Amino acid sequence: MDERFGLARHVRLPGPLRLDGGGVLAPVEIAYETYGTLDSDGGNAVLICHALTGDQHVASAHPVTGKAGWWTRMVGEGRPIDPARHFVVCANVLGGCMGSSGPASVDPATGRPYAMHFPVLTVRDMVRAQAMLLDHLGIGVLRAVVGGSMGGMQALSWAATFPDRLRACVVIASAARHSAQNIAFHEVGRQAVMADPKWQAGDYYDTEPPAAGLAVARMAAHITYLSEAGLTEKFGRRLQAREAKSFGFDADFQVESYLRHQGISFVDRFDANSYLYITRAMDYFDLAEEHGGRLANAFRPSRARFCLVSFDTDWLYPTAESRAIVHALNAAGAPVSFVELSSPFGHDAFLLESPELNRVVDGFLRAGE
Amino acid sequence: MDERFGLARHVRLPGPLRLDGGGVLAPVEIAYETYGTLDSDGGNAVLICHALTGDQHVASAHPVTGKAGWWTRMVGEGRPIDPARHFVVCANVLGGCMGSSGPASVDPATGRPYAMHFPVLTVRDMVRAQAMLLDHLGIGVLRAVVGGSMGGMQALSWAATFPDRLRACVVIASAARHSAQNIAFHEVGRQAVMADPKWQAGDYYDTEPPAAGLAVARMAAHITYLSEAGLTEKFGRRLQAREAKSFGFDADFQVESYLRHQGISFVDRFDANSYLYITRAMDYFDLAEEHGGRLANAFRPSRARFCLVSFDTDWLYPTAESRAIVHALNAAGAPVSFVELSSPFGHDAFLLESPELNRVVDGFLRAGE
Repeated sequence: MDERFGLARHVRLPGPLRLDGGGVLAPVEIAYETYGTLDSDGGNAVLICHALTGDQHVASAHPVTGKAGWWTRMVGEGRPIDPARHFVVCANVLGGCMGSSGPASVDPATGRPYAMHFPVLTVRDMVRAQAMLLDHLGIGVLRAVVGGSMGGMQALSWAATFPDRLRACVVIASAARHSAQNIAFHEVGRQAVMADPKWQAGDYYDTEPPAAGLAVARMAAHITYLSEAGLTEKFGRRLQAREAKSFGFDADFQVESYLRHQGISFVDRFDANSYLYITRAMDYFDLAEEHGGRLANAFRPSRARFCLVSFDTDWLYPTAESRAIVHALNAAGAPVSFVELSSPFGHDAFLLESPELNRVVDGFLRAGE
Repeated sequence: MDERFGLARHVRLPGPLRLDGGGVLAPVEIAYETYGTLDSDGGNAVLICHALTGDQHVASAHPVTGKAGWWTRMVGEGRPIDPARHFVVCANVLGGCMGSSGPASVDPATGRPYAMHFPVLTVRDMVRAQAMLLDHLGIGVLRAVVGGSMGGMQALSWAATFPDRLRACVVIASAARHSAQNIAFHEVGRQAVMADPKWQAGDYYDTEPPAAGLAVARMAAHITYLSEAGLTEKFGRRLQAREAKSFGFDADFQVESYLRHQGISFVDRFDANSYLYITRAMDYFDLAEEHGGRLANAFRPSRARFCLVSFDTDWLYPTAESRAIVHALNAAGAPVSFVELSSPFGHDAFLLESPELNRVVDGFLRAGE
């Protein structure tokens, strides 16, 4: 077997998983991929946490789109996270739509998809499910948890929830809580989904999905992933193939066409209800609130080293959010390195080729190996 | 008659108005309000240009919502634009839905609403229609044209299109062209409207309007009118009346409830097709492009004095956009004063109480009187 392509796996754990919202999930299905081999001492495991619309296919082809893994720039041969040295685990988050328990899963109580009867989750619930997966895989302590964006929130939650189970924590382009503006953009996306008559209060699994609403949600979100300067550099006011304005409502500008494509292609690979549940979990995320209102308290029991990275043009989770985390880690006496990288690409920068990012993560991981 | 309440007027001009897109509009209906009395020499007229979702009710109650005029902080007794000194004119823009020709108007060719057969407009077309109104009112040269946001674009277009017809030009929180990010946000809004099945390719005037889609469009746009800091100050992560999170999809956070209200209340007073046409006109706006690619060329024939104002937290039309206009005015040898004001409220600041803004506009207008 060629392990470059990952090992697609799925496990059905009996649970029960008690959730922050008071609900209980049983069974707990987790779809995951692994790359590399676990050392005999189990000490080389690296858990990668994915972002809102990511999945477990971090370094192997996506089964629906056929596209390469979403973080092959970070994970692979000669990359900072290398299956030759690390046993890499990446699981679809709880609430997702790539095989882990989510709104499209069958509710054992009814034999039909949960839809909106699926319990509302938190980022900590996602992390608890990942810990159950590691138990199942026989992994006690992780060499590192690594994530960008919502993946970074999970990494932070890992450090706070299982302080003895990770030696290093890498948090890229992320935040310790969702701001009012972050919540506002997510709420627009949810309202766009729910405004689509095909949504039918979530019960669309036997009919057609609310593709138009989900596409609008994706379009709105996508703007927040890019910087104004990046959009100007990439598209500016350039027109499509046409020579002149159409004086109509077709996509005249390249940026319109690009956004429409982002919306349309997203709905082929993502479940609208999962989008509702995962955005909700992100909006609920406030690590300080979970620890008596002081972020430093979240990190006091931690034994991990931390690496924080932000990007200067990221206005979704701006550098100030990373800096607040660094200050809290300092207050908690945790070892932390922090760097703000320069990139024209806004929040998306963490997914793109970035030799600086790779150098930072590689150096940080090797320092502890 | 108490002129504090404005004079609601409507005129049907024969036209034809030749449009930038090649179409012809005839007749041209213009709904407008006036405040104050025109001097015998006709020299005290001030034209106010409204923003995307504004209207002619600048300083008198809105006939649908009953709310006070949208700019009573700038226009009124003792305000910088004062009906005691000025003859104030404000017209609903072409393409609008408050009485001027727009997609909801009856197409004389069919006897039915234009809907999407209404011609696509430019900001310059709006300005040409305003000039026709001034001809009708017997106003030759304006003491000033004043506008914020899209109103500022019209003011700039006035200076470029009718350089001999204005003595002063006040441009607040605006830009000389729409950026890729500006276009992207508008495109999301248009797609939200068009994704609503009730939109029916614009032919909804006999049925129900696409209220859900328009509400989503308004919500997305509204985020761009506020600053991240302003949202944090106003709402932060504060919950609604509830004590704790609901672990559901109701509006848990105050910012969600506020946004939903913005969306829902907007659809009562605005036509979805007008939203499409006016956003399109804004996206097409690029004053430099209309003048051989050099913005300074737009201003060379102008005899007006200019006043530019930006707000430091406005990320929709940031200060850099105003500065680019100032540089072009400098290059064209036009007299210009420019100030960036500090406000926590983002783009919306131009509509809010701002003693500094009033001082700047008052001083600028009086200097030329």
